[in-house]
Parts: sequence; structure tokens; C-alpha cells
Amino acid sequence: MTLDNCTDEAAIRALLDGFVKAIRGKDIHGVMSVFAPDVVSFDFGPPLQHGGGEPFRKRWQELFDAYQGAIDYEIRDLSVDAGDDVAFSHSLNRVSGTLQNGQKSDRWLRFTACYRKTNGDWLIVHEQVSAPVDVKSGKAVLDLKP
Amino acid sequence: MTLDNCTDEAAIRALLDGFVKAIRGKDIHGVMSVFAPDVVSFDFGPPLQHGGGEPFRKRWQELFDAYQGAIDYEIRDLSVDAGDDVAFSHSLNRVSGTLQNGQKSDRWLRFTACYRKTNGDWLIVHEQVSAPVDVKSGKAVLDLKP
Repeated sequence: MTLDNCTDEAAIRALLDGFVKAIRGKDIHGVMSVFAPDVVSFDFGPPLQHGGGEPFRKRWQELFDAYQGAIDYEIRDLSVDAGDDVAFSHSLNRVSGTLQNGQKSDRWLRFTACYRKTNGDWLIVHEQVSAPVDVKSGKAVLDLKP
Repeated sequence: MTLDNCTDEAAIRALLDGFVKAIRGKDIHGVMSVFAPDVVSFDFGPPLQHGGGEPFRKRWQELFDAYQGAIDYEIRDLSVDAGDDVAFSHSLNRVSGTLQNGQKSDRWLRFTACYRKTNGDWLIVHEQVSAPVDVKSGKAVLDLKP
């Protein structure tokens, strides 16, 4: 691993630190700033895939609006592999807080992010966020902990 | 994009062609040959994550054994981004066939694969496979089509 790769890995870890802070602060501009405009998202909810832009921003805003007050967000078991201009990371991400109906929500999700470096800056160009599915019941398994 | 990147992208597309053929033929050695021994898998079913080796092989064997006869497998909307030694791909993968209970199964899943080139060969070091989840019912949405 060269010094450049170390710097790239550090830059991606810093991007993810900023992402976590932005989610916690419900800072929609901060969240959007880590994604490429043409990101392809395999999101937690339907459809199978969707793109960036206004619909993508709206989904994040709806997530923020679903919680009373602050969202707690944490990234664990983070692994980052960075090449010269292509990189990926995977981690287990915990999102928790109090929903608008007063119910507490606490979920660990699997998060894979894929990055491209353009003009010296890394951006997420693809992400997949999911929960495992129990094949027999067809239900998402949302109470797993790492 | 340099010629090398084109060659790398072609190599990854060839790897995925072999992966599809191996799944269709229930060729467990063919399937295993595309994964690094220490792959980190965020699989369709629980747990949140698991590693490679014998348990990983066993999951694939169980998938094969769940179907009567051949499995049909198809990759659509494939995008490959390859750097010098780090790469990723995303696609919508259809797995269909007749289950052991006689029921037909036909599902589109989201597939993100992350690759490392070691000694000139690309291998999948991380994958995430999932279906979207309906937040209200908590059920996986398994009847979506691209």
C-alpha cells in the first residue's frame, strides 16, 4: 500500500465521519455532499434501484422527518479499500431514535458504498443498504446485532 | 479510461459470466472460484455478515439443493468500475426455478460485488445481496421487476 492509498483511505474515512455527523444533525446538505449527483442507490426500501437528484434528497428528508428530534447513527466494522480512483467500503450501520409515533427504533443495517475520485474528491457513486431476510417468513430480520 | 482499465473491466465481466454459468450448472467449485477465501458477505439471509470458507460454501450448496433441477440465473443492468487493483460492480440479478416443494420461485435481487486484483487475478472480496423491505409491514418485497 502506497502513501497515496493511505491518504485516499483516510479521505474516505473522513467522508464517512462527515456523513455520520450530517445524519445525526439531520443536515440534508451535508448528507447530499457525499453522494455523486448520478448515484445509483439500492436502498433499504423499494424500488429495486433509484438514482440521485431530487427524489434521492426527498427520501433522506423523509427519513429525517420520521424521527422526533435527533437521530443516532453509528458505523461499526468499517473496512475501506481504496485504489487510485476507485474505492469501496463496507460496514454495519446502526440507526436509532424515537419515531414520530413515540416508538423507539434501533436497527443495524448492512452498508456497502462504492466511490469514484473525480477532480481529487471522492464521492459515493453507488450504495446498497439492507437488512437480511428470513426466507421462511419473508420478513426482514431487524433485531440482529453485530 | 486506459486500455488497462478496459482489460480489467472485461476480466470482471468474464468472471461474472463464469459465475452465472456456474450457478446455472450448480457447479459449486465454479461458484467458489470467483470469491476470495476471506470474502465478507452481506447475504440475502441472516446473519448480518459472514465470512468465506466452509460455511460460505455450505450456504451456496443449500441454495442449489433448494431447487429441483437447474436454476435459472440472469444478471441485468450491470455496471462495472475497475481501477488498477480495486473494482466494484452492481447489477440486478434474477434467480428463478422450481423449489423442492414444487413451487415456482422467481426473484430479482440487488447485487453489489467488490473486487481486489491479486497476482493478476480479480476476486470478489465483498458482496451484498438483498431485497428491498417494506417499512410498514417489515416484509421483503420479492415481486419487483426491473
